[in-house]
Amino acid sequence: MGRQEKTAITPARAEDYPEWYQQVVNASDLAENSPVRGCMVIKPWGYALWENIRGLLDNMFKETGVKNAYFPLFIPKRFLEKEAEHVEGFAKECAVVTHHRLEESEDGGLVPAGPLEEPLVVRPTSETIIGESFSRWVSSYRDLPLLINQWANVVRWEMRTRIFLRTTEFLWQEGHTAHATQEEAMERTLLMLNIYEKLVQDYLAIPVLKGEKTASERFPGAVNTFTLEAMMQDRKALQAGTSHFLGQNFAKASDIKYQSAQEDEVYAWTTSWGVSTRLIGAIIMAHGDDDGLVLPPAIASSHVALMPISKNTDDRDTVMDFTHTLARELGEQDYHGRKIDVEIDDRETGGSRGWDWIKKGIPVRVEIGPRDIARNSVFVGRRDKGSREKESIPRDQFIKTIVQVLDEIQKNLFDRALRFREENSTQIDTSNDFYAFFTPKKPEKAEIHGGFALSHWCGNEACEEKIKTDLSVTIRCIPLNAEKETGRCIACGEASVQRVVFAKAY
Amino acid sequence: MGRQEKTAITPARAEDYPEWYQQVVNASDLAENSPVRGCMVIKPWGYALWENIRGLLDNMFKETGVKNAYFPLFIPKRFLEKEAEHVEGFAKECAVVTHHRLEESEDGGLVPAGPLEEPLVVRPTSETIIGESFSRWVSSYRDLPLLINQWANVVRWEMRTRIFLRTTEFLWQEGHTAHATQEEAMERTLLMLNIYEKLVQDYLAIPVLKGEKTASERFPGAVNTFTLEAMMQDRKALQAGTSHFLGQNFAKASDIKYQSAQEDEVYAWTTSWGVSTRLIGAIIMAHGDDDGLVLPPAIASSHVALMPISKNTDDRDTVMDFTHTLARELGEQDYHGRKIDVEIDDRETGGSRGWDWIKKGIPVRVEIGPRDIARNSVFVGRRDKGSREKESIPRDQFIKTIVQVLDEIQKNLFDRALRFREENSTQIDTSNDFYAFFTPKKPEKAEIHGGFALSHWCGNEACEEKIKTDLSVTIRCIPLNAEKETGRCIACGEASVQRVVFAKAY
Repeated sequence: MGRQEKTAITPARAEDYPEWYQQVVNASDLAENSPVRGCMVIKPWGYALWENIRGLLDNMFKETGVKNAYFPLFIPKRFLEKEAEHVEGFAKECAVVTHHRLEESEDGGLVPAGPLEEPLVVRPTSETIIGESFSRWVSSYRDLPLLINQWANVVRWEMRTRIFLRTTEFLWQEGHTAHATQEEAMERTLLMLNIYEKLVQDYLAIPVLKGEKTASERFPGAVNTFTLEAMMQDRKALQAGTSHFLGQNFAKASDIKYQSAQEDEVYAWTTSWGVSTRLIGAIIMAHGDDDGLVLPPAIASSHVALMPISKNTDDRDTVMDFTHTLARELGEQDYHGRKIDVEIDDRETGGSRGWDWIKKGIPVRVEIGPRDIARNSVFVGRRDKGSREKESIPRDQFIKTIVQVLDEIQKNLFDRALRFREENSTQIDTSNDFYAFFTPKKPEKAEIHGGFALSHWCGNEACEEKIKTDLSVTIRCIPLNAEKETGRCIACGEASVQRVVFAKAY
Repeated sequence: MGRQEKTAITPARAEDYPEWYQQVVNASDLAENSPVRGCMVIKPWGYALWENIRGLLDNMFKETGVKNAYFPLFIPKRFLEKEAEHVEGFAKECAVVTHHRLEESEDGGLVPAGPLEEPLVVRPTSETIIGESFSRWVSSYRDLPLLINQWANVVRWEMRTRIFLRTTEFLWQEGHTAHATQEEAMERTLLMLNIYEKLVQDYLAIPVLKGEKTASERFPGAVNTFTLEAMMQDRKALQAGTSHFLGQNFAKASDIKYQSAQEDEVYAWTTSWGVSTRLIGAIIMAHGDDDGLVLPPAIASSHVALMPISKNTDDRDTVMDFTHTLARELGEQDYHGRKIDVEIDDRETGGSRGWDWIKKGIPVRVEIGPRDIARNSVFVGRRDKGSREKESIPRDQFIKTIVQVLDEIQKNLFDRALRFREENSTQIDTSNDFYAFFTPKKPEKAEIHGGFALSHWCGNEACEEKIKTDLSVTIRCIPLNAEKETGRCIACGEASVQRVVFAKAY
């Protein structure tokens, strides 16, 4: 029997990945399922991640001239009916408000009363309601471009839900812009995709493939949808942000017209783009290990946990003084526009404290006992290393190098995720190899398969559909700026000019 | 005939205050009514105020140990039924979700489908749904205090709505805390009230009276409600923030129990506290004048508008260079933890530009023409002074004194609002005077009345009710820390120990 290290999360990733995910969410205290079907409660440790994502994106948006606004939660039914594809995509699963009062019934309970003349839908996305405002805000070319973003909750009634990945209610931002020309709208679509790429790669430490969706995977009503695709540790793809070029479709549906400099009446060109709390699911699945969550420092809820250890009352004051001074000095360090965030954990829980912080994924853990203080040093563990790999470091050196250490951890996580993706991505040119790649080796481990297949596709929707039906594999994206290369469609053998990315996906 | 100055807003405040309010909202571009009954669209200039309020409060909350989280938008009907007074207060006007799908009907339209087993209410406030989480999060005294805040949208179905003041959907924060002792919960209730006071007085420049609500004006289910009351320019009161001591009422309804150090099972003591986008209505009504919005610099969407003026193409480059350099240097100035925000308005609209910025309430306007540049000076108008009172100031001096000028404006607005409240508050001791004070002098100007009456009240709900029925006047608060003084109830003549604040209110 080989030596088996005990891990903090049961089951391990290799045993049951979906269940591992749920256990990490629980153990790290990020969020929980609520008594409301499909809705989650985002707990402080999880919400802090969202606050950090929001802060970073909000700054990047504003630097490009985007302004925030807020539009109604409710969308009148007739609005949703405006754009034909859009209604197909969104009317099917939505929360419908039909009454505006609860009244006591004869048996003493409450029953819906005050029926509405027109039902209202809780926004699944806001193109139609924002389009109505845009139609009034835009009249001349001087009013363009209009660059608006909204931070909001949206609701899509989901049958099978999983915390962060697919929930009935989720938090997101949705940007909506209107432009005088097609070129400018397309430029904005790609600019926002690049901002998302910067967020996900530089802060969330998740490498992404940047590409365009095929027609069947587009946002309902869009002309083009651009996407970032990341690989999770079960080798499935997760869409980490999308940016849509809507052409004039929504402008026509919502009557967003402007008078050009030549005094013609022209429909505007619009875009929309969004990321959601789903990104927290991506962080969990890209970096988490069998001991729990692993947070990239640049987005972490907090950076350093200090754990004072005192055996008796005499020690206690000395240890606490040392701890508080250390916390203050760490908290004064600049770390990429934030300060270092420090948690002091003085619970008297013995050994389980350290494991709590490992499970919560904090980048750096510090134990501080009387012997450390005697040597003016601290005992440090890093979340990118093994849980037992701890090191005694002189206190002043620890403070002086903390930013560098966090940067190292950040880089290690990104590199590890990139290596994982590369090891599990492969060019496949025959149908046999393709089917083998996506077929589980063991039937009882249905989730284990090859990863990303870079294969040729003829552009025919029927081929895409066949692969989806046979393997539950979809084209995640047609990579941007990929080399052109002639080849044969993996499904039908017809000529193709470029490889696309096939994968199973969340 | 006296000289009549033309003003930017029609009607003036004295002519028709409610209509003046709506016209200021329009002219300042803060927000607009949406096609969804009772819901508003908050436009960028208005949303920036909310972002500033949120940023300031969020920091102050976090400094006291509060953490942000997020709870579901939907509340199952049975939750709302838990607390008897609460259901009375909130079930009557709420948005009820009864279906989770829209389906095509035979005539091609969409109809609600997929009826829910249990209707869901869109949260009017979250005590019940947050209480459910708290009941699971709290088990030992070591889990307390629990200090949680949520930034969210809420919905209360209102029959008569007015932008910012009373809308079906609005944005707010709601804090919810649980404590081991009554004393600690009460301390927290008052601590949060003091934070609101700091926000409203120091940043919104609105003086407030701090006090306790009478039983009939309490939050449904609360033991005590504390409030900040501000006077608007029509002499009516506006509640600018409330903090509720909930006793053990909600802990019992939601089963929030903890094991004490002595191992007894005890119900926790809870609080809740909130402010909303209503505060933007308070800013408009406390400071606005007949030329439009007047923004206190400490909360302003932006601080300085630069308006370059060039008569011909030769000038243009020089003027724009000068303007951009000025904008950059102003933007480097620290202003109470922010930087100075500068708008460059290079629209070619001639004279109307200046009026646009006056109506939008920006604290400082700067005109920059070739002659100003020749003298290395700028032409400056301040929103706390008359629209024609402009001054030429050497450029470098303008930069050096901008923070001081903003501070002066801030102080002037606060002082003016305080003076107004003092001039329109009076101690009244006879019923005749009291009724005269609240009776409009002219029937066609029903909104003009005396203001705040500081009068004695015996504590009897019947007296409160009589005054409310006769005059639409309510007790806004029983001031905290007011001098005890014996007197006679203004309604019934019975003995009283303290004056309370009577007013008409929003």
